[in-house]
Amino acid sequence: MSLLVTGSIGIDTIRTPHGVREKCLGGSSIYFSMAASFFSPVCFVGVVGEDCPFDLAEVFKDRNVDLRGLEVRAGSKTFVWHGTYHENMNDRTTDHVELNVLQEAPPKVPDVFRDSEFVFLANTAPALQIELLEQMTKPAFVAADTMNLYITEYLSDLQKLLRRIDCLIINDEEAKLLAGHSNLIEAARHILAMGPQIVIIKKGESGSLMCLEDGNKFVLPAYPAPDVHDPTGAGDSFAGGFMGCLAQVGRTDFDTLKTAVAYGTVVASFAIADFSLNGLTTTAREDIDIRLEMLRKVTCF
Amino acid sequence: MSLLVTGSIGIDTIRTPHGVREKCLGGSSIYFSMAASFFSPVCFVGVVGEDCPFDLAEVFKDRNVDLRGLEVRAGSKTFVWHGTYHENMNDRTTDHVELNVLQEAPPKVPDVFRDSEFVFLANTAPALQIELLEQMTKPAFVAADTMNLYITEYLSDLQKLLRRIDCLIINDEEAKLLAGHSNLIEAARHILAMGPQIVIIKKGESGSLMCLEDGNKFVLPAYPAPDVHDPTGAGDSFAGGFMGCLAQVGRTDFDTLKTAVAYGTVVASFAIADFSLNGLTTTAREDIDIRLEMLRKVTCF
Repeated sequence: MSLLVTGSIGIDTIRTPHGVREKCLGGSSIYFSMAASFFSPVCFVGVVGEDCPFDLAEVFKDRNVDLRGLEVRAGSKTFVWHGTYHENMNDRTTDHVELNVLQEAPPKVPDVFRDSEFVFLANTAPALQIELLEQMTKPAFVAADTMNLYITEYLSDLQKLLRRIDCLIINDEEAKLLAGHSNLIEAARHILAMGPQIVIIKKGESGSLMCLEDGNKFVLPAYPAPDVHDPTGAGDSFAGGFMGCLAQVGRTDFDTLKTAVAYGTVVASFAIADFSLNGLTTTAREDIDIRLEMLRKVTCF
Repeated sequence: MSLLVTGSIGIDTIRTPHGVREKCLGGSSIYFSMAASFFSPVCFVGVVGEDCPFDLAEVFKDRNVDLRGLEVRAGSKTFVWHGTYHENMNDRTTDHVELNVLQEAPPKVPDVFRDSEFVFLANTAPALQIELLEQMTKPAFVAADTMNLYITEYLSDLQKLLRRIDCLIINDEEAKLLAGHSNLIEAARHILAMGPQIVIIKKGESGSLMCLEDGNKFVLPAYPAPDVHDPTGAGDSFAGGFMGCLAQVGRTDFDTLKTAVAYGTVVASFAIADFSLNGLTTTAREDIDIRLEMLRKVTCF
């Protein structure tokens, strides 16, 4: 089934203990689309300024990513992000941000994309996520991400969004903040009561936890990878693998959701093995299936 | 096969967000023995002072724990520990410690225990762990725990110990400190190079990671439990379930090791559900098997 993503496109400068990459391509919709395209065609919605140095058509040329939702906005500047990962790779400092075009009006969803069935609303202001969602005509399964800023500053908007989506995908600190509970199982229970039928809590190197409204739970460790070179985009790659798998299968029953979490986990493990998109662009579809079987082997007993 | 444990016996005062328990029974050998006795008889070696308020024969009366290695030392005082767990239950503050009898000579291993095949050396000075190990005549599988203090202050002794044991069971911060690596897979690789064939890294609410010298790995999340009331003894209960299972089966092949880690995980989940030993003493053997199947269900895909 068709899969649509809306999110950021960024000019990233990344420092990790393994090196520095300046002005490389990043942003939530970019990582998501590259990850999801292993499984499903992707309808891409995003906006850059006229200064954008990247040729996205070239970036996605061998991928089934439809860029008709990409807007290059005259007179605007592209989102810029500089970040540093410290020794343990879990601590990240944002060194510099220029929101630029991200603080202007959101891009329009093209008419040809409006009937997409699977929708991922990457992290942005919840009011904008709602505005984007309202342009969709028959979404069957909507997932969204959010972050600390929106939980603390725009909670009322976020609560409105939560009542309209099927699945929230957030990290552990955000889940604790949103729920006001430090135990993640309790936190998930509180978030489910806010609206979504599914909450997926990403725990970085400790994997993820999925809790369903019907009481089903799934916990999966991260793929045990020694070679973490750049964690940027890990969460969006996870979401891309997850949603891509669901859109490919066309179902959201519990077994499919579990498989999708496992695919998301594996795709994220490739994303973090190199800087920027290199970890994903140098990976083949069969590598993903081989690693999925490895993940099954090292987690089942 | 026979299983021997040496470790501490303590008078604990525990504060958690769920309440306070004063002067309750604790200590590594106590939690370990209670956990292991679900699976295997246990030969107990430990020492208390003449002030010890607990009747251990009564505590273990329905358990197959042989207390002939318990020494009540005249003129000495029992180990005392006061600790506080903070809101997220992962942060622990030690409020007060009196080592007392633990800083005197270690207990003797009774002659009838010396041919035990499975041995667990709970956390104490590595020189004492070696001294205790040297009293054993034919250990087939030796596991040990250690802590930050011994890694930083007694590294040479610890390195000697590591060359003589089969399995090190430590927590994630200790593993990073010992290995000088923040990536746990890398840390495990470095620790394996120090001697043991197996290293198990406990990650609290994020579960555990087992790495073998032959390259095999196993990662398992913690049991997704909402009701954590007192994390004291979680690690020793994990070790007890793990070693108890191995001693019961009498093998240490990879499949048995994986099952043992899963049993350790489940036993620990019961231990933390109530204060002191209550979580373990109110649990039946069949509860453990039911939860093991639940753990399998929520982790396999």
